[in-house]
Amino acid sequence: METFATKLWKNAPKAALLVAVAAGAMLQGCSNTKGSDATGATASALSSDAATQVYVKPGSHDELYSFLSGGFSGQVSVYGLPSGRLLRNIPVFSQHAENGYGYSEESKAMLNTSHGFVPWDDLHHPKLSRKDGMTDGRWLFVNGNNTPRVARIDLTTFETAEIIELPNSAGNHCSPYPTNNNEYVIAGTRFSVPLDMKGGTKDVSLADYADQFRGSISFIKVDPDKGDMDLDFQILVPGFDYDLANGGKGPSEDWVFFTTYNSEKAGTLKEVGASQNDKDYLAAVNWKLAAQYAREGKAREMPANYYHNKLDKATHTAKSTVKKKVRYLLAEECPGMMYLLPAPKSPHGIDVDPSGEYMVVSGKLASAIPVFSFSKFQNAIKNKQFDGEKNGIPVLKYESVLQAEVKEPGLGPLHTEFDGKGNAYTSMFVSSEVVKWKLSDFKVVDRIPVYYSIGHLMIPGGDTKKPHGKYLLAMNKITKDRYLPTGPELTQSAQLIDISGEKMKLLLDFPTIGEPHYAQAIQASIVAPKSVKIHKLDENRHPYVAKNEASTDVSRKGNVVHVKMTAIRSHLTPDNIEGVQVGDTVYFHVTNLEQDWDVPHGFAIMGANNAETLIMPGATQTLKWIPKKAGVFPFYCTDFCSALHQEMQGYMRVSPKGSNVPIAFYTGKKKPAVVAQK
Amino acid sequence: METFATKLWKNAPKAALLVAVAAGAMLQGCSNTKGSDATGATASALSSDAATQVYVKPGSHDELYSFLSGGFSGQVSVYGLPSGRLLRNIPVFSQHAENGYGYSEESKAMLNTSHGFVPWDDLHHPKLSRKDGMTDGRWLFVNGNNTPRVARIDLTTFETAEIIELPNSAGNHCSPYPTNNNEYVIAGTRFSVPLDMKGGTKDVSLADYADQFRGSISFIKVDPDKGDMDLDFQILVPGFDYDLANGGKGPSEDWVFFTTYNSEKAGTLKEVGASQNDKDYLAAVNWKLAAQYAREGKAREMPANYYHNKLDKATHTAKSTVKKKVRYLLAEECPGMMYLLPAPKSPHGIDVDPSGEYMVVSGKLASAIPVFSFSKFQNAIKNKQFDGEKNGIPVLKYESVLQAEVKEPGLGPLHTEFDGKGNAYTSMFVSSEVVKWKLSDFKVVDRIPVYYSIGHLMIPGGDTKKPHGKYLLAMNKITKDRYLPTGPELTQSAQLIDISGEKMKLLLDFPTIGEPHYAQAIQASIVAPKSVKIHKLDENRHPYVAKNEASTDVSRKGNVVHVKMTAIRSHLTPDNIEGVQVGDTVYFHVTNLEQDWDVPHGFAIMGANNAETLIMPGATQTLKWIPKKAGVFPFYCTDFCSALHQEMQGYMRVSPKGSNVPIAFYTGKKKPAVVAQK
Repeated sequence: METFATKLWKNAPKAALLVAVAAGAMLQGCSNTKGSDATGATASALSSDAATQVYVKPGSHDELYSFLSGGFSGQVSVYGLPSGRLLRNIPVFSQHAENGYGYSEESKAMLNTSHGFVPWDDLHHPKLSRKDGMTDGRWLFVNGNNTPRVARIDLTTFETAEIIELPNSAGNHCSPYPTNNNEYVIAGTRFSVPLDMKGGTKDVSLADYADQFRGSISFIKVDPDKGDMDLDFQILVPGFDYDLANGGKGPSEDWVFFTTYNSEKAGTLKEVGASQNDKDYLAAVNWKLAAQYAREGKAREMPANYYHNKLDKATHTAKSTVKKKVRYLLAEECPGMMYLLPAPKSPHGIDVDPSGEYMVVSGKLASAIPVFSFSKFQNAIKNKQFDGEKNGIPVLKYESVLQAEVKEPGLGPLHTEFDGKGNAYTSMFVSSEVVKWKLSDFKVVDRIPVYYSIGHLMIPGGDTKKPHGKYLLAMNKITKDRYLPTGPELTQSAQLIDISGEKMKLLLDFPTIGEPHYAQAIQASIVAPKSVKIHKLDENRHPYVAKNEASTDVSRKGNVVHVKMTAIRSHLTPDNIEGVQVGDTVYFHVTNLEQDWDVPHGFAIMGANNAETLIMPGATQTLKWIPKKAGVFPFYCTDFCSALHQEMQGYMRVSPKGSNVPIAFYTGKKKPAVVAQK
Repeated sequence: METFATKLWKNAPKAALLVAVAAGAMLQGCSNTKGSDATGATASALSSDAATQVYVKPGSHDELYSFLSGGFSGQVSVYGLPSGRLLRNIPVFSQHAENGYGYSEESKAMLNTSHGFVPWDDLHHPKLSRKDGMTDGRWLFVNGNNTPRVARIDLTTFETAEIIELPNSAGNHCSPYPTNNNEYVIAGTRFSVPLDMKGGTKDVSLADYADQFRGSISFIKVDPDKGDMDLDFQILVPGFDYDLANGGKGPSEDWVFFTTYNSEKAGTLKEVGASQNDKDYLAAVNWKLAAQYAREGKAREMPANYYHNKLDKATHTAKSTVKKKVRYLLAEECPGMMYLLPAPKSPHGIDVDPSGEYMVVSGKLASAIPVFSFSKFQNAIKNKQFDGEKNGIPVLKYESVLQAEVKEPGLGPLHTEFDGKGNAYTSMFVSSEVVKWKLSDFKVVDRIPVYYSIGHLMIPGGDTKKPHGKYLLAMNKITKDRYLPTGPELTQSAQLIDISGEKMKLLLDFPTIGEPHYAQAIQASIVAPKSVKIHKLDENRHPYVAKNEASTDVSRKGNVVHVKMTAIRSHLTPDNIEGVQVGDTVYFHVTNLEQDWDVPHGFAIMGANNAETLIMPGATQTLKWIPKKAGVFPFYCTDFCSALHQEMQGYMRVSPKGSNVPIAFYTGKKKPAVVAQK
C-alpha cells in the first residue's frame, strides 16, 4: 500500500526532500492523505478480525499495562493494551485538580523546585525499573524536561513517590535511562547553558554560546529495595545539545549512549545553525568507570541548589529537602570514560538491540540508518582508531565502529525498537511509516503507513533483553482527520499494530492525552497482583488523622484553625462548624474511614481558592481555605459514594473577624458543644 | 441473568433493604459480584458480535459525539460512540496545565468568581442547546456545583466561551436546564443557605437552619444568535435541598420540574435527618409565567456580587465583569407559578417522556417509581385538588397527579431516559442494573446488570422529543475489578448497551475521566461540519499579536517587559533575548503564525511558576514569568511540530536588577540589535 508520503519519497530527488524535511512541508502533505487504510471486501474481513483482536470483553482485563508519557500534560497516562482504554492518568509534574494533586497540603511539596513551586512540566520518557535487564514492574522513572527533574512512580499505588531536581541541566530530555539493575538512573541535558562553577548559570552574553555553554549528565543512585533516588554525581560535557539516552545490555551493559546534535554550537536559529555539519555524535559513556572515578576521588564538588521531594508513606505527605552541593567529573579528565562516535546529521533516537551488540542511531535528517557494532567500538578503542578529539574527548573513526547502514529506510528516521525475533522497527517521522528491517542483513522487509508523523514507537519490552514482540504502538504527532473533529485543538493519537506475523497489521487507532513521546509496556501479570487496594487506617501516621469519629476536632491557634474531620458513608464528622472568622487560615484534614477498595470520598467547600481533595480509603488529605466573607458556606463529599451521597454534606459558619462566636462542631446533635479557644 | 444484587432484592424483606441502602452496604456487595457477564460458546459469539459493533476502523469516525461530565475533574470529556474513545477533554472549571487553561493570561479571567480565582469545580450536568425541543449542536451548557456557576461551551471550537456565577445559590446541582428554544437556562440550588437580603449569606447560628435558610432558582437568558448568557431573575424558594431539574415538552413545555429532598429542613446529619418524611416534593414551576411576573413588575431587586466571564473572540481573551444586583421573585407572591407534587422519599431524578405527558420521579429510597401525568396535574390545579400548602406554595394531592407507579423496578432508582419507541430505562443504583419498562402499561419488560452502582444513564437525545434510541450509556459510580487495577485510585466507568432490540445487550466497558454524572450525545453529522480548524491570523485582534516576524518586539515599561514573539516551523522569533532583569514581570505573547489545521506550537521557559501555553494556529497566548535569578534560561516549543522541532528553541538572558545590559533580541543574526529602553 502506497501512501502519498511514500510515493513522494520514492520519486523525489533526495536534496529536495531534505529541504522539505527542514521546512516541515510534509506535515501539510499529511492532510492530503486519506485516512482510510483498507477498502473492499478483504478489508472488511480484516477489520472484523482486528475488532476481535483489540476487543476486551466487558469485565475482562487487558493483557498489558502501557505507560504513555503525557508530554506537555506533565503526566503519565496508563492505557490497557490491546484495548487502548485509558485506565489512569497519573499526576506527576502538573497540578491535577481532579484529585487535588499539587493543591492539597500533602502533595504541594512534590512540585517544589529551586525556582519555587512549578505547577507543570513536559514529561517525555517513561522507563520501567529493571532487574537483569528486564522490566520488573516495581517503579516507573520519568523525566521533566522544562525544569529538569526526574520522578519515580510507585507501581503498587500508581502514585508519584519522588521527584528530584537536577542542577546544571537545562531541558532534561536525554533522560531517564535506568541501568540494567537500576544501579543508576542517568539523565542528560538537552540544552547547554553557561554553568557558573559557583552554582547556577552565569549572566553572560548569549553571543558567547560556543565558548561558555556546557552540558551535563546526571547519575542518580537508586536504593535497590525502596527505590529512593539520590544524585550521586554529574559529568560535565561539551556544549552540544543531547537528545536521547539508552544503554547497553549483555556485553555492552557498562555503557550508556547519548545522541547529540548542535555539535556546531549554534546559539540562535538552531533550525539552520545546528544542521550545518554532516555528522554529529553518538556519545558513549562507560557508566561503571564513571562511578569508579567518582568513588575514587576524581569528582570535585561545586555549590548547587536543588530540591528533592519525597512522599512519606506513613503520613502520605510529600516533604522537600534542599541540597546544596553536587559532585562532578570533567569528561576530559577521565580517560576511557567517554568517546564520541560520528553519527549522521542531528541524530535523534539511539536504541540498542536485545543482544547488546548493535547501537542503532536514527538521524532525522539522514537518508540511511547507521548501525554501530559494540565489539567494533571496543576494538576501535583498543586499536586507537581515532579521528582526533572534540573538547578533549576522543572521536572514533566512523568506519571503525560501523557495522552497516540500513539503506533507503524512509524519511526522517527517529526511533527503533526490537521484537526479539531478529527484527528492528524504525519510526519514520517525515514519510509517516513504520519500517521493519532485519538485524541479520539490515534489509528492509516490510513497511506500514501510520497517521500521521510518527515520533516514538514502542514494543512492550522492546528495549529489554527479551522483547514481548506481539504488538507495536505508534505514537503520532499529527492527528488531523483521524477522529471526529474537536475544533482547532485535537487529541494526539496512537496506533496499535500487530507484529506477530511477517507483515505488520494495523489494529486500532486510539486518542491519547497530551503528547505521548515514549511509552513502555509490561505484562499485567507482573504489576496487577502487587496493586494496593486501600491505605491501612491503622498505619496512618498523619499528624491530623482522626481514626474514628470520637477523635474529630476543631481547634484554633491564633488565626489558624485545624479541622480534624472524618468521612464515611454517608456523613462527614463534624458537619456543622461554627466559630471560624473571616481571615482565618482553616485546614480541613479529612480522613476517609472506609477500608474497602474503591470507596473514595471527596471534600470541597464553596468558594475555596483551591481544588477539591479526593481521599482514598484510610488516607488523610488536607484542604486549605481562607474565608473572605462572613456567612454560611456549605461543604460536601464530591465523590458519589452511596445512595445517600447527596446528603453527605455540612455547613461552616464564618463570623466577622473578632466576633465572639465560640468554636463549636457537631454532627447530628441539636446543640453545639462549646469548646474553649486556645 | 441474575446478579447477586437482583437476587438479594428479590429475597430480602423491604425494610431490611432500606436500611442496607442507607448504610451503603450494597457497595461492599458489589465486590462479591464477578465481573464477567457472559460465559461459554454462545457468549463468545455474542462477544465477537459486540466487538464488531463498537469497533471503529482506523481512520473512520464515530457515529456520535458524547459529552460526559467530568464531575470532580471540573471538565467535560468528549467520547466518540460507539468506540468509547476519548476525543477531547474540554477544560471548563478547572485549571488544565496541558494547554495552559487557567494559567495563561488570556484564560485566567474565566475562573474568576466573587470569592476570587477558583481553580476547580464539580461539573455534573451537560445539556445541549435546543431548537424546538431537539438538540441543535451549537452549545453545551454545564453546571459548576461547588461555587455555583453555569458555563457555555462553544461546539464550533470545543472551548469554554462563557461562565456566569450564580448569587444566592449554594451547590448548583439542580442545573442547568435549557428550555426548548434556549429561552432560559434554569438552575436551582442544591443546598439552602441563610440569604442576606442585602447580598450574600448571613452569619447566623447553624441551629437556625429551618427558619433562616432558603433556596433559589436562577433564570439565565440566552442570546438566540450568540448564546451569550445573562442572569435575568431568580425565584426564592423554600429551604429544601433541590436535586435535579428537567423541563416539559409539547403540552408541558412551559414547565420546569425540580426534585427536592430534605423537606424536613434538617441542618445536620442529613443522611438521617433528611430521610424522615415519607414524601418529599417535585416542585413544578411555570417558567413562562415566572418570566412574565418578572417582566411585569413583580420582581424586586437586591444587592449581589457575582462574576460574568466571557471569551472575546477577536482577542481570544477572557474578560470578567462584576454584577452588583439581582432581581428576584418570591414564590409565595406569584400565584399559579409554582406547585409542589408529593414524591416518594428523597427523589433524585426527574425525567419527562418524549410526549411531554409523563414526569418520571425516581426516589432513591423508594420501592416504586411514580409517573405523574401532566394533564392530570393541570386538571388538579383547575379543580383545586390541594393538600394544603408549604411555605405558601400549594401542595397537590398525590393521587390527583399520579398516572401510575412502576412496581418492583429494582433498588435505588435514580434516573430515567427514553428511546422514543415507547420505552423508558431507569438506572438502579443499589441493585446495579438498568431496568426497561413500557410507557404504555408501566410494566418492567427487561433488566440488565451493570458494573457497579450506576448513577445517571444516557440515551442520545433521550431527553428530547425524538430520542436516537440505539444506544444507552450507563455511568457507574464503582469500578473495582472491571479493569486492571491501578492502586487505590481507580478510574470510573461507563458501559455501552445496545437498546435497538427487545433485550438490552452489553457491548463495551470504557473508563472515564473524573466522575461522569450526566452526559448528552448528538449525531456527529450535526456538529462535525461546523468544527473550526484554525483561528484566522488576519482576524486576530490580540493587543500583543505579531502577525509576522518583522513585528516581533521586546519592550520595557518600568519593570514590565512585553515580548511579542512568533512561532512557526521551526523557530521562535526572537530566540535570543537579553536585557531582562531579576524581578521583572515578563509577558511572552506568542503568536502561532501557522494557518494549517493541527499545527499547534507550545511555549515554556525553564523554572516558570506557570504551566506551558499551547497556541493554536493563528492565536496569541501569553505566559507570565518573573525571573528570580540571574543567568541564562532556555525556552522552547513544547509541541513536536516538525522534524526540526528539537531545534525550535531559544535563550533568555537575565541580568541582576539594575544591570546595564540593554534590551536586545534576535533570531539568527550574530549581533544583538540594541533597543532603547522605554
